[in-house]
Amino acid sequence: MPKLSRRTFLAGPALAAGCAAFARPARAATPAATAQGPGVYRYNLGDIQLTALYDGIWYLPIDGKFVRNASGAAVNAALTAAFLPPNILPITFTALLVNNGGKLTLIDTGTAGQIADTAGSMIGNLAAAGIAPDAIDTILISHFHPDHIDGIKTKDGAKVFANAEIVVPEPEWAYWMNDAHMAGVSKSVHGYFLNARRIFSDIAPQVRRFKPGAEVVPGIVSLPAYGHTPGHTAFAIHSGRQSMLVMSDTVRNPYLFARHPDWQPIFDMDGEQAVAARRRMLDRAAADRMLVAAYHFPFPACGHIVKTVTGYELVPAMWQPL
Amino acid sequence: MPKLSRRTFLAGPALAAGCAAFARPARAATPAATAQGPGVYRYNLGDIQLTALYDGIWYLPIDGKFVRNASGAAVNAALTAAFLPPNILPITFTALLVNNGGKLTLIDTGTAGQIADTAGSMIGNLAAAGIAPDAIDTILISHFHPDHIDGIKTKDGAKVFANAEIVVPEPEWAYWMNDAHMAGVSKSVHGYFLNARRIFSDIAPQVRRFKPGAEVVPGIVSLPAYGHTPGHTAFAIHSGRQSMLVMSDTVRNPYLFARHPDWQPIFDMDGEQAVAARRRMLDRAAADRMLVAAYHFPFPACGHIVKTVTGYELVPAMWQPL
Repeated sequence: MPKLSRRTFLAGPALAAGCAAFARPARAATPAATAQGPGVYRYNLGDIQLTALYDGIWYLPIDGKFVRNASGAAVNAALTAAFLPPNILPITFTALLVNNGGKLTLIDTGTAGQIADTAGSMIGNLAAAGIAPDAIDTILISHFHPDHIDGIKTKDGAKVFANAEIVVPEPEWAYWMNDAHMAGVSKSVHGYFLNARRIFSDIAPQVRRFKPGAEVVPGIVSLPAYGHTPGHTAFAIHSGRQSMLVMSDTVRNPYLFARHPDWQPIFDMDGEQAVAARRRMLDRAAADRMLVAAYHFPFPACGHIVKTVTGYELVPAMWQPL
Repeated sequence: MPKLSRRTFLAGPALAAGCAAFARPARAATPAATAQGPGVYRYNLGDIQLTALYDGIWYLPIDGKFVRNASGAAVNAALTAAFLPPNILPITFTALLVNNGGKLTLIDTGTAGQIADTAGSMIGNLAAAGIAPDAIDTILISHFHPDHIDGIKTKDGAKVFANAEIVVPEPEWAYWMNDAHMAGVSKSVHGYFLNARRIFSDIAPQVRRFKPGAEVVPGIVSLPAYGHTPGHTAFAIHSGRQSMLVMSDTVRNPYLFARHPDWQPIFDMDGEQAVAARRRMLDRAAADRMLVAAYHFPFPACGHIVKTVTGYELVPAMWQPL
């Protein structure tokens, strides 16, 4: 190393600046990127590998009416506490890919760009994870809301996962595919009925229905969690002595609905029943310190739950190498 | 859609399973991945684009002695509260790339695989972000600990960023490059002195030194935050009316040192001075609700700080599309 005298030390910066200005070639400016980096996060549970696949966000203007039993001011305070702007709910979507001994199960499908311009990146992120849609063996559906099933088909009606068996909760099929239930529902819920038909009608023979409570894929056990929809289903994944909970929509944005588990979002069709399912799921996760994933948690949408004096808190998983 | 009678409804699953077994071609099993997905996260601050670049984790066995003024049991309790295993501190590394009008400044450099096998992915993630090391205009260093400067050179001594000016805090240079300060330090700190010479000695004429407090790159103002090391420096980034804090090592793992700001990790060379800098930085971030980034926060290493009854809490930024 060069010897440093007081003189060379003080002269250093000026000399260095001169050198640098002389030595540096002119280079093209690097434009700011216009797209986010890949949303792919892998973690292992025993012998099972999970991959969280980000689909994006629907920025839903909520205008004080998103939670039936809380004021707009209270909801805005919860958003502000999470450093989110008021009156807009960022509904994030993250599908979960389960690799169980080489067989691939995708739990819920992303939006395929059919909900918001700012969502629909799941297939791109699947590609970034090195997996073609054709490689998916099983599509496992938690419930029939459009943001969970739209990824099964493109806007034009083409099947996205050519080789996948579609596996859905029996009570969910029974509710949404029965014309008698369509009468008298609100316009938006009526749209969900039509959308379920668009997705499932012509592939009905290939759809396997299961009774919640059953093991649906080796290592994946379904858990009835009705209320959000009549057949809404969560999942437990097991490998060896390790387990995790896939909470589906029992808990949506954690800053709103883990912190305030009694709040009833308008998307919960039976508010009281959904609150009971939410509390049951959060209690189990917290008591057993289980790893949890949920479709609407912030990406990578996994972590742990702690019970607080007033509700629950999500502790996001620390991003780690594999 | 097909009409559903009770008979076809009940028969459905069995029929579907049969169909699927017949129709599905045999395909190769998809092996579990052996590497994590890219660790690249972009966000904008006014006209400036930030890119968090993940470098990995050093799993440091701490054996009850990592915090000078807290018991091993208390530190383990803090790890457990964060759902991390006891006696091992996961030290994550995330460098921050700043694109200010097409000029690229990298704040701290990652470890270039010279600290732990589970770290060194920053250059790969830079490539995943579409940027070659040659495109970096400025390397801005917070302090001379190896995990912040090792990325300047490969293990073999080759410069990694061919065109970058290296910009460092003057008091940091004055401390580490002065042989008189080496006498009497511990073996590990002595190693830091040797490492600083390995990195900087032969490129000293190209190193620009700045006095903390100065604007060092357009939009990036340096902030003295001494204590962690004698010249340890944080940064504020400004664009238009927006600002953020780059806290460097004033706050390390938030579950330990935001929640317990008075704890003195053994890496803080002047514990009392570092606590004062940490509290000053956390207070400012919380009071002004500023966006913050920090090198050892969990990836993507950005979010906001809230003051609690006993300390501070990191609210991680929600992963969003650009």
